[in-house]
Amino acid sequence: MNYKLNYYFSILLLLTSLNLQAQKKYVLVVHGGAGTILKKSMTPEKEAAYTAALTKALQHGYDAIKSGKTSLDAVEAAIHVLEDSPLFNAGKGAVFTHDGKNEMDAAIMEGKSLKAGAVAGVTVIRNPITAARAVMEKSEHVMMVDRGAEQFAEQCGVEIVDPKYFYTKERWDGLQQAIKEDSVKAVLDHGNKKSMKLGTINRDYKFGTVGAVALDKMGNLAAGTSTGGMTNKKYGRVGDSPIIGAGTYANNLTAGISCTGWGEFYIRSVVAYDVSAMMEYKNLSVSDASKTALDKMEKLGGDGGLIALDKNGNVAMPFNTEGMYRGTVTEDGKIEVLIYK
Amino acid sequence: MNYKLNYYFSILLLLTSLNLQAQKKYVLVVHGGAGTILKKSMTPEKEAAYTAALTKALQHGYDAIKSGKTSLDAVEAAIHVLEDSPLFNAGKGAVFTHDGKNEMDAAIMEGKSLKAGAVAGVTVIRNPITAARAVMEKSEHVMMVDRGAEQFAEQCGVEIVDPKYFYTKERWDGLQQAIKEDSVKAVLDHGNKKSMKLGTINRDYKFGTVGAVALDKMGNLAAGTSTGGMTNKKYGRVGDSPIIGAGTYANNLTAGISCTGWGEFYIRSVVAYDVSAMMEYKNLSVSDASKTALDKMEKLGGDGGLIALDKNGNVAMPFNTEGMYRGTVTEDGKIEVLIYK
Repeated sequence: MNYKLNYYFSILLLLTSLNLQAQKKYVLVVHGGAGTILKKSMTPEKEAAYTAALTKALQHGYDAIKSGKTSLDAVEAAIHVLEDSPLFNAGKGAVFTHDGKNEMDAAIMEGKSLKAGAVAGVTVIRNPITAARAVMEKSEHVMMVDRGAEQFAEQCGVEIVDPKYFYTKERWDGLQQAIKEDSVKAVLDHGNKKSMKLGTINRDYKFGTVGAVALDKMGNLAAGTSTGGMTNKKYGRVGDSPIIGAGTYANNLTAGISCTGWGEFYIRSVVAYDVSAMMEYKNLSVSDASKTALDKMEKLGGDGGLIALDKNGNVAMPFNTEGMYRGTVTEDGKIEVLIYK
Repeated sequence: MNYKLNYYFSILLLLTSLNLQAQKKYVLVVHGGAGTILKKSMTPEKEAAYTAALTKALQHGYDAIKSGKTSLDAVEAAIHVLEDSPLFNAGKGAVFTHDGKNEMDAAIMEGKSLKAGAVAGVTVIRNPITAARAVMEKSEHVMMVDRGAEQFAEQCGVEIVDPKYFYTKERWDGLQQAIKEDSVKAVLDHGNKKSMKLGTINRDYKFGTVGAVALDKMGNLAAGTSTGGMTNKKYGRVGDSPIIGAGTYANNLTAGISCTGWGEFYIRSVVAYDVSAMMEYKNLSVSDASKTALDKMEKLGGDGGLIALDKNGNVAMPFNTEGMYRGTVTEDGKIEVLIYK
């Protein structure tokens, strides 16, 4: 009887190990924003450009991890690529505010120490994710905003650029279009109570945030998010990206999470931390926790997506929009990029 | 047998109802900050002044609830009293930044709708909690910072004051003292790697935030927090108070929470939402969840306290400092104010 048990046990062990080999560990996940991304409205050239940029971001992050660098390094490296690309609403490609400025937000968090850094409303920092990391590593603060954040970043040696660096024709035209639509909307809404709301959001101009989550060889998670906010935004609005717990969170006990979508709903639902909390307190998988957190946020009226990577290298990338620019790389270096549903 | 069961069941019901009658429902809880508050360093006059201000805040909030107003009205009314008092680090009594300014943050959240509003870095708004409420009710945003937030508040008719309104001799002297201690510290730390950190926190100058949580007759919860931040703060630092999930959170399913303490640790631990998450996902009581969330934050190295009020009118007011200005009022109007451990 004992021999028979041992026999079955060995078979079980073998199957488990085969299964583990089959399930490759994800080491880096990136997103370039969720929104109305339809195959029919995409040209082959545009699709190729997005795919190339996401691939490059994954490759840079993967190289960092492979060479033994930390998950923080990988997140920063991947986000640099996306911030330097005009395709995404972060860094170079940041959208314009109502006043014709580019105001950017970013956050980064380390799962091992639960240390975090964030900047909001910065206008002269080429790579806001690096400024967020400087806040985390070189100050005792977590969040700095506006000119104060810029002054701190400059003192830390973070690259400062002329605000003109962030001009792209596409984003400028986007602002003009948004202003035009807003004024049409204001006329149409005349007398309607809803139109009395100041700072009305144009639904279609809120996406394009970028983010990354990485798991390094030491088993440490990190997550980061960077955004240009919303086209035509007013009144110093800050979204979820730089809010720890809302748009960005990482904890070695559970997962790293970076969100993209209608920021206000992510803040109210504390989405990123909600994923972690459901994993920690309800023992949900990263996939179930991500889906549930997103569903809760959707019930409030929001939309968007998120990427999450758990401590064992399992990944989840749910979204409730038409598409989400996203990609993964596994420990063997295999890169996969996806755009549509 | 059935009769016997019925008999026991009736006894049980009776006992439960008696117990419910005995446990009075709390309808409003306020705090005026946690920190090194020792009986030996307090004068009877100072103690009486704090007690009077907290009592007045509780009375104003209670009057709102009693007259059938919402929990949001009660939170705003109670916080107005504390913001208008020079005793607390919010509104009139806000501490000075390194540059000699008073930069204030506030947030408010409604448990029924999960709507929220927050402002950060405002310098000319007499009652920042009212500006936060305006962001929640009159915009589609959750968070606005700096001049944008002020511009929005002014357009909403929120009272604007000359920045001089926030001058108090005690806070100004506090800044001079902090600057002096910082420069001594810089000399002492010379050559020490730690001193290379920009934006070092002076541990003793970070407390005094005010907050309130209310439960109205309709059974709706609301929570609000208002702060002047840290004495001698630099670089546009934002703490936990205006961060939904960190310093402020309310959800009718669980509780309303307002935190006070070393903000950076509250942000990294997402303390306010953590209380709610442990109640929702682990079925902890408001008391156990509050204690556990605070312990987790303390393990990272932070200190402070929080107030929490659940949907059934149970209250928790844990803190890990020497004292916390706090008070409660029950549905019969009985006010209790506490300061020390």
